[in-house]
Amino acid sequence: MSYRKFHLSISVHFILISHALAQSVIQIFPRKTNIAIGSKTRVDNELYCDSWRFSVETNDAGFWEYIPPRCTKFVESYMTGDHYLSDSEVVSSYSLDFAKTVNVSGDGKDAWVFDIDETLLSNLPYYEAHGFGSQFNEEAFDEWVDLAEAPALPASLTLYKELKQLGFKIFLLTGRSEFQRNATDKNLLFVGYSDWEKLILRGASDQGKLATVYKSEKRLELVKEGYRIHGSSGDQWSDLLGFARAERSFKLPNPMYYIA
Amino acid sequence: MSYRKFHLSISVHFILISHALAQSVIQIFPRKTNIAIGSKTRVDNELYCDSWRFSVETNDAGFWEYIPPRCTKFVESYMTGDHYLSDSEVVSSYSLDFAKTVNVSGDGKDAWVFDIDETLLSNLPYYEAHGFGSQFNEEAFDEWVDLAEAPALPASLTLYKELKQLGFKIFLLTGRSEFQRNATDKNLLFVGYSDWEKLILRGASDQGKLATVYKSEKRLELVKEGYRIHGSSGDQWSDLLGFARAERSFKLPNPMYYIA
Repeated sequence: MSYRKFHLSISVHFILISHALAQSVIQIFPRKTNIAIGSKTRVDNELYCDSWRFSVETNDAGFWEYIPPRCTKFVESYMTGDHYLSDSEVVSSYSLDFAKTVNVSGDGKDAWVFDIDETLLSNLPYYEAHGFGSQFNEEAFDEWVDLAEAPALPASLTLYKELKQLGFKIFLLTGRSEFQRNATDKNLLFVGYSDWEKLILRGASDQGKLATVYKSEKRLELVKEGYRIHGSSGDQWSDLLGFARAERSFKLPNPMYYIA
Repeated sequence: MSYRKFHLSISVHFILISHALAQSVIQIFPRKTNIAIGSKTRVDNELYCDSWRFSVETNDAGFWEYIPPRCTKFVESYMTGDHYLSDSEVVSSYSLDFAKTVNVSGDGKDAWVFDIDETLLSNLPYYEAHGFGSQFNEEAFDEWVDLAEAPALPASLTLYKELKQLGFKIFLLTGRSEFQRNATDKNLLFVGYSDWEKLILRGASDQGKLATVYKSEKRLELVKEGYRIHGSSGDQWSDLLGFARAERSFKLPNPMYYIA
């Protein structure tokens, strides 16, 4: 082998390997690399941020106010790449597996509760525009809600349709307020959700309550009306914990914010 | 630039990049690649398996009997590399953050409950020897327990010592049986744990109970004795759910097995 050919073969070899590795890194941790950060630091950072995500998603972290600054790029990459979609798909598929084991009776009382933001609808376009990890701006977010342009989270739309097919009554229980009812209705219908039993928003008397309390109270009302809440899907632990809980709860991913 | 020099520079370029990427892949998903599997399939597999891990760790998956065969290599890499250690470290650090907010009174009734296997002690050497995803062999596992050679999970040992410093009374609540008391005592002391308040193992009347029930009953006994269970650390949801729950629960990683 000539010297030139030897180097040519090394080049091709490493182009192939680095392409394969780059693919796995990009697909699993799609990220915008920061030239100023050395590769060792970047690796340590990714490892830390992925472990932070573990603690956040299992609720080990408890209440947290903002994404650790060193992890904002990591969260952006997670949310905008395949990882977030894949995580939600697997959650949906476990939800459906469970739903299929439920003996749905003919009395119309078999219920499933869905949260809306980051569950049925994705506000990713809003967070992409306003920056991951930037302070929450209620006014700007309300304007975004008014646009009624949030896309569906694909995995949830599929699950929603399957649950309807199976005969579940679907309740939408959101932290959004009554004044956002029209925009919410419009947005949900526009992206393909339909025929829910009831859309429950925060009324005047619900303002200022912790989400866990507000959502538990509303679930309790459903239970008192005779509904059997088999499943509950939400991206926040406050969608799932508290009282009058569903038989099975399904935590969707959300490393962007925490609602108590 | 001559042709030769051009290729030489490409070679060096890709050696550097591929080394950096290889490092991140190895550190975040340390894995043994299977030559027979194409890189696209491997990437899809890693993405799926990491999403499976999300569903398992959040308890979305509910009961599962075995690691999906396509994910056994993924789990092995996760467990034997930095990822598992990093995840447990961050959980421990959140546990300690919370513990520091507790007003430990002088009455000796402020308690913390630890599970043992995959919480204080790691059975990784056992699973490495017997294969990840192989069927659980109770006899072989009991022999391993008898050896009393399980290493400490480093993050838990640090937390344990800090909690003692803070004045917590420490209870060890394990699914192991009374006949394993001596080996368990010996193993714990050997790797650096000491001065626990009580080691609670399954007695004759606890055999056959679901772990969630057995552990809840034992916690309830502590509560009835006047203990305030502030924190609870365990790798299984059955360590943390049920009744007489701790004020805060800390789920440690374990994608190897599920105990109901």
